[in-house]
Amino acid sequence: MLTSEEIAKDARRAGNILKTISNENRSNVLYKIHDELKAHKNAIQEANKLDLQTAKDTGLADSLVKRLDLFKGDKFDTMLQGIKDVADLPDPVGKINFAREIDENLILYQITAPVGVLLVIFESRPEVIANITALAVKSGNAGILKGGKESINTFREMSRIIGSTIRKSESQTGVPVGSVQLIETREDVSDLLSQDEYIDLVVPRGSNALVKNIKSSTKIPVLGHADGICSVYLDEDADLEKAKRIVLDSKTNYPAGCNALETLLINPKLNNWCDVLENLVRKGGVTLHATPAVKHAYLESLKQSGHLDEKITANLVDADETKDFDGEFLSLDCAVAFVFDTREAIQHINLHSSRHTDSIVTENKLNAELFLKGVDSAGVYWNASTRFADGFRYGFGTEVGISTSKIHARGPVGLDGLVSYQYQLRGSGQVASDYQGAGGSRAFVHKDLDISQVSWQ
Amino acid sequence: MLTSEEIAKDARRAGNILKTISNENRSNVLYKIHDELKAHKNAIQEANKLDLQTAKDTGLADSLVKRLDLFKGDKFDTMLQGIKDVADLPDPVGKINFAREIDENLILYQITAPVGVLLVIFESRPEVIANITALAVKSGNAGILKGGKESINTFREMSRIIGSTIRKSESQTGVPVGSVQLIETREDVSDLLSQDEYIDLVVPRGSNALVKNIKSSTKIPVLGHADGICSVYLDEDADLEKAKRIVLDSKTNYPAGCNALETLLINPKLNNWCDVLENLVRKGGVTLHATPAVKHAYLESLKQSGHLDEKITANLVDADETKDFDGEFLSLDCAVAFVFDTREAIQHINLHSSRHTDSIVTENKLNAELFLKGVDSAGVYWNASTRFADGFRYGFGTEVGISTSKIHARGPVGLDGLVSYQYQLRGSGQVASDYQGAGGSRAFVHKDLDISQVSWQ
Repeated sequence: MLTSEEIAKDARRAGNILKTISNENRSNVLYKIHDELKAHKNAIQEANKLDLQTAKDTGLADSLVKRLDLFKGDKFDTMLQGIKDVADLPDPVGKINFAREIDENLILYQITAPVGVLLVIFESRPEVIANITALAVKSGNAGILKGGKESINTFREMSRIIGSTIRKSESQTGVPVGSVQLIETREDVSDLLSQDEYIDLVVPRGSNALVKNIKSSTKIPVLGHADGICSVYLDEDADLEKAKRIVLDSKTNYPAGCNALETLLINPKLNNWCDVLENLVRKGGVTLHATPAVKHAYLESLKQSGHLDEKITANLVDADETKDFDGEFLSLDCAVAFVFDTREAIQHINLHSSRHTDSIVTENKLNAELFLKGVDSAGVYWNASTRFADGFRYGFGTEVGISTSKIHARGPVGLDGLVSYQYQLRGSGQVASDYQGAGGSRAFVHKDLDISQVSWQ
Repeated sequence: MLTSEEIAKDARRAGNILKTISNENRSNVLYKIHDELKAHKNAIQEANKLDLQTAKDTGLADSLVKRLDLFKGDKFDTMLQGIKDVADLPDPVGKINFAREIDENLILYQITAPVGVLLVIFESRPEVIANITALAVKSGNAGILKGGKESINTFREMSRIIGSTIRKSESQTGVPVGSVQLIETREDVSDLLSQDEYIDLVVPRGSNALVKNIKSSTKIPVLGHADGICSVYLDEDADLEKAKRIVLDSKTNYPAGCNALETLLINPKLNNWCDVLENLVRKGGVTLHATPAVKHAYLESLKQSGHLDEKITANLVDADETKDFDGEFLSLDCAVAFVFDTREAIQHINLHSSRHTDSIVTENKLNAELFLKGVDSAGVYWNASTRFADGFRYGFGTEVGISTSKIHARGPVGLDGLVSYQYQLRGSGQVASDYQGAGGSRAFVHKDLDISQVSWQ
């Protein structure tokens, strides 16, 4: 048994080699993994059945059992296709961000480079192992993967196949064995979380509890989000039909999603704003958690229009202002409050949201621009549903996760979030002491070059 | 007295406003700060004299006293000019990184945005307060600044002037009072380092001990470097004259710099490699910390050429291999070891260096490309001195610091390291459930747009 430090050191060593391997060879090893997983479908399925049986025997919730099942519908084939899709993506490594002439024959390049070593921790879904293996190898990062105990048999079988494929092809592709390491025990994880000298980024994939727990127990940067507290603000100049559609979609398209609406902010100067709430209740079956002011005005208005009925009152509760605006419902529930202008909406969001995605509905360009500039979230939307916050919808091909951190990568993160950059300086013997500022008289040129013209061949 | 949490919250509030202020107004407040500091030169000088007197009375080292002196040479004027220079830089905020048509009238923009709240901790140099104030305000970030106790009087006087200038001009520029907060006591700092909910980035400016101490006591990302263990590798195909110049410059141009050479790796197949060491000793006065193999070969060679004399032997000591390759000398000392090819050089560097800046000297393009790809440092150089690792030399105008972290910003960090990005989605009422993957049938367009054509006016 390797210690956590040995695992982390091995990963660092492998990562240092992996970053020098060509895109072609990094993709080749992924094709081989695809082929071997496909060839061993039966063995994987047997292992998966064991996990499913154990889950049923121990009375795991149906929703969790479903996630464990790797052979439900076309899940296995989709997983396999996903490996190929990632292999076919453009190389995220070695892209030139800029090139600058520092002096004659002294050229500075900023070039994308792998982050190094990723620690990926996920829960029950066994397909994540293939997904993350593909993303890590493609981006030139070594990966240490830890799956949940519920899928241990599936995980072991797939690990075995992935490990032996990399081993067998190492002499051909150069991708080292330590590039993907799979660990089983929970003790390993807490030890690994302290290996900040060797591990560069932690990617938790799973419940809020998992992410929160990891964030609080490591100094390594964490890519992901614990909460997705998303808001929609209905401005006084909102188009009512757009408002109705956007609010309904944001809340009900997938209420358990991190990009689902949790807080609706309404400017009461918007005519017929009650229609938006009524639509949300009648079409979406949503329970409104309203502040006293919203509740009073809403009930009064529906009484006057003759729309007040049992459905409306059954789906209306008092907001608990100590928590309803600061957490996720992840269900058909929505907190509702009044704000009296765009600035107040921005303040509310910056105070209560989790900096994930927030949207303004308005036809007023000034208010929209103010909102887009003022809200401090990864996604700031104008007249669009918060549900668009997703790597696939953004056109990133595949998604590592959605980040609510303020540095490195924000929002939906594609392969690009797994690379950083290095500065390459290509000279011909230059020394600093010849230049101004370091004792010499030569001036720097500092002329940006057209990167499409750069060639090192 | 505000608590640390109140200070951090105030900064967050101010940052949220500051990010909406126009570049013109952010620059305007900097011009005003420039003018007021200039107008109060006498008062600042009086305060600075007090600090200098205290420093002398308490027997502070001469080098530290020098750093405290804000009126040595043209330091004060340079500081003032620096504020204007930063004000005149292009706006780092609101730049469009990419624009993508998701669907008709649904456009996604990735736009640079301030990180939020910076905590900047620096030691004796009082001019840093002006420098950091300028960088923070220009990049739209709120800054909490803590100076060293040795410069407390200068710090207080400049704080007073900067604070009152921002306050007086708030109604005109919109830059809020809390944008720059200056704190005095050490207790505040340790409390502030735990405010990771409100503070986004810590920037320590000072000794290795300061940076190490901060890194080990906060969960907030730290921009900077503790160590600068830089290496030069002399390949067997190195040009000897280039090697001599680059090694001498890297080591001796400014030995206390973080980009100074600490470890020299030599391929003994390089003809006349001893000349590089002899040059380093005779021209640079450098003491070599050599491994037994290097020492033996070097002495043998010099004996044969008749160059062995007292200067050579006096400047040659046995390397302590338990630490000489894993720390900084910051003096005219250099660790020297043999490596037998480029791969071994890369391995040595990836194991021992601090991922700052490392250089290969060679005329062999294959070895150079291998080195540039394989070394996992912020700066990877070919035939150039490590001393070029510097924001000014890179053409960044001004430098926040040099980062050895693997994510967000690496190497010399300019204003760009203080911004991150947000995704803006500008729609016309679109909802996710109309599209494939979320229940609908519409396909995404995902067409990248020419950002030079984007206009929201």
